[in-house]
Amino acid sequence: MGRTSDAREKILNAAQSLIELRGYSALGVAEICKTADVPKGSFYYFFASKEALALAVIDEHWAGQKSTWTRILNSDEEPLRRLYRLFEETEAAQRAGQQSCGTVSGCLFGNLSLEMSNHTEAIRARLQEIFDAQVEMVDSVITEALERGEITATDTREAAQAVVAQLEGQVLFAKLYNNTRRLSPLWANCLALLGAREPQQAVVGT
Amino acid sequence: MGRTSDAREKILNAAQSLIELRGYSALGVAEICKTADVPKGSFYYFFASKEALALAVIDEHWAGQKSTWTRILNSDEEPLRRLYRLFEETEAAQRAGQQSCGTVSGCLFGNLSLEMSNHTEAIRARLQEIFDAQVEMVDSVITEALERGEITATDTREAAQAVVAQLEGQVLFAKLYNNTRRLSPLWANCLALLGAREPQQAVVGT
Repeated sequence: MGRTSDAREKILNAAQSLIELRGYSALGVAEICKTADVPKGSFYYFFASKEALALAVIDEHWAGQKSTWTRILNSDEEPLRRLYRLFEETEAAQRAGQQSCGTVSGCLFGNLSLEMSNHTEAIRARLQEIFDAQVEMVDSVITEALERGEITATDTREAAQAVVAQLEGQVLFAKLYNNTRRLSPLWANCLALLGAREPQQAVVGT
Repeated sequence: MGRTSDAREKILNAAQSLIELRGYSALGVAEICKTADVPKGSFYYFFASKEALALAVIDEHWAGQKSTWTRILNSDEEPLRRLYRLFEETEAAQRAGQQSCGTVSGCLFGNLSLEMSNHTEAIRARLQEIFDAQVEMVDSVITEALERGEITATDTREAAQAVVAQLEGQVLFAKLYNNTRRLSPLWANCLALLGAREPQQAVVGT
């Protein structure tokens, strides 16, 4: 039993690394199994198809990221400070990834949105749920900031979508230029998008 | 000769449509030739490899888009109005694409940045040049707006990168949700990122 779940975990880890490096379409089941060091029979024991594997990779990655986002965005810190932490940790995670594999891998969900959403409806639906959840989490924090009179943006849903879009756009450039410093302006851009009343003060103290 | 250049054009058009629909890795040369209705021999007469074809597709697409961006961003209109037109035409183009093929295809350069940049250095370099050029064009307009005292953002390069990142991020969501209305907030978000002094006035009159 221990060995069996180990094989599933190995396949998932190998698939995530390979998808982050080269995307989904470029991968074959044989290569995934070779990288994971498991026999090909194991693959079809755990996953009905390559698409089922991709969904499992997405779910596993989101489980980890959701827990990070929840820890940061539901903390006791002031609302805008929590958004600052989110960008800080995002940049740190991309930097750590770059140090370990040589290139900025970007956002798995953004990567798969652009590569897959127009030809795999199951993956499109799953990615929509994940970005809906991200926007919802950011919206809650923005709503708190609005109630405290710290920002002027009143359509908190649209503001949250703009913040997540800015994050995805800058992560795209961090990946393309293989440079995590592209993520440094995220905080200032977020304050601008929210119409923060005292951006200077919000930055000081972080 | 007429027939020969026709074949190259047909291959380029087929490749661009297929790449926009399903990405680069998922495509084979045989499928491209079948869609283009040209014999496989023609492909290797015009293109040394699939990568060479991808570069040609990128160059052809950029030639068209650069001409559109130049027409809009170098026009006689007021600088912020030009940025408004850029977003307006981007949304119209994505809507037209959606009507003709059923799905929002997004930005070819953004799609290929996320799919390809980490495993094809020639494509990474070409896409960097294109986004550098886009940022440069937006930067010029922002600089004019700054000189006219219409915005408060003083680092025009960083502001231009934020505007292009916002564009790429929202186009990503337009594609994922197959909904071009995701692009409607681009103008308001752009004004916020630039710290426009009189956003109401800038919107009125468009």
